[in-house]
Amino acid sequence: MTPLSNFQFMPPALSKLIESLRLLPGIGPKTAQKLAFSTLKMSTEQVKEISESLLDIKTQIIYCESCQNISENTNCNICIDDKRDSSIICVVEESMDVYVLEKSGAFKGKFHVLHGSISPVNGIGPDEIRIKELINRINDKPEIEEIVIATNLNLEGEATAMYINQVLNNSKSKLKITRLARGLPSGSDIEYADDTTILHALGSRVNINESL
Amino acid sequence: MTPLSNFQFMPPALSKLIESLRLLPGIGPKTAQKLAFSTLKMSTEQVKEISESLLDIKTQIIYCESCQNISENTNCNICIDDKRDSSIICVVEESMDVYVLEKSGAFKGKFHVLHGSISPVNGIGPDEIRIKELINRINDKPEIEEIVIATNLNLEGEATAMYINQVLNNSKSKLKITRLARGLPSGSDIEYADDTTILHALGSRVNINESL
Repeated sequence: MTPLSNFQFMPPALSKLIESLRLLPGIGPKTAQKLAFSTLKMSTEQVKEISESLLDIKTQIIYCESCQNISENTNCNICIDDKRDSSIICVVEESMDVYVLEKSGAFKGKFHVLHGSISPVNGIGPDEIRIKELINRINDKPEIEEIVIATNLNLEGEATAMYINQVLNNSKSKLKITRLARGLPSGSDIEYADDTTILHALGSRVNINESL
Repeated sequence: MTPLSNFQFMPPALSKLIESLRLLPGIGPKTAQKLAFSTLKMSTEQVKEISESLLDIKTQIIYCESCQNISENTNCNICIDDKRDSSIICVVEESMDVYVLEKSGAFKGKFHVLHGSISPVNGIGPDEIRIKELINRINDKPEIEEIVIATNLNLEGEATAMYINQVLNNSKSKLKITRLARGLPSGSDIEYADDTTILHALGSRVNINESL
């Protein structure tokens, strides 16, 4: 069905909301229209709450200078937690992956968020994601013993894993580099994995040179 | 999958956004989570645009005092349009239905929005929707000759149509009361109808006492 947003008799505030909701990924014209009309039936307080939360996300959230995960402080809660194992770093593509792995309760080390994966097709090379921040962090901290690469198990994730393995092998030879076990279904995204799968995948992680 | 929003290491601004997006109808925990994380990748300008549009919808949109449709002025653009036929009023359940009917281009009269339908199961009687505003409007304006009832073709919509027909027959006997033709699939909602179906339904509308 064609969207209605450009219709002349619609109040401009409504057409504007429909257009701006479409900025959100995965929201098509029909969904945007539905959501916009439904806000009309919501209380002013509820709509204000959504509006303010959206602004807060941009003003209050920064990136942790160590692990690059989203945070409200210069160093995130995971990085400043003394109880966590500093000798092991789990490298993930996105912030959401951190929370999925955390939820499984199987990982007690620290994280590093790349904010993407190497994808030559989309013009994303190693310099476009936060790999150099990972290298610097490893070089600065001799206590780091193991890197668990937990990039997605698709083409881009595998390429990223292989690239990181290569770079780390060249720079610091005694570092143990592992990859999540193939308990995860191949070709899938980590964010959709269930806790049990993640537990198995973390438990049976293997040396990167044997797995790839 | 369980939502992540209550996770302890997530920045509060992010958990708050996930929670508040769930206020929108049809947005479950997983979708809210996806949308919240994706706002992190959007520009501040884009997020601000969505946030401001949401506020505008509550501050700038009021109801037309004549037809009860959403409007930015006391009288909406359709009601103040001299080119439209004032002798015929199309009664719909929701504002969105007005735009669906308008888009078909088949109706040149005016509208009346009920903002709901009679539903005893949900405790919504004739007084909870804007039927009295319709009656007052008809009584005030002798130029009105026909009322096209375009409520949805489900149980509530039919009950609403029958109720309006009964009330109008009692109050103003020379009024022609019609119902959209059964070209629309029974049990369906008007907002999902395609233009051609609406054209046929408007074109072959029948006297309400013959159709119900």
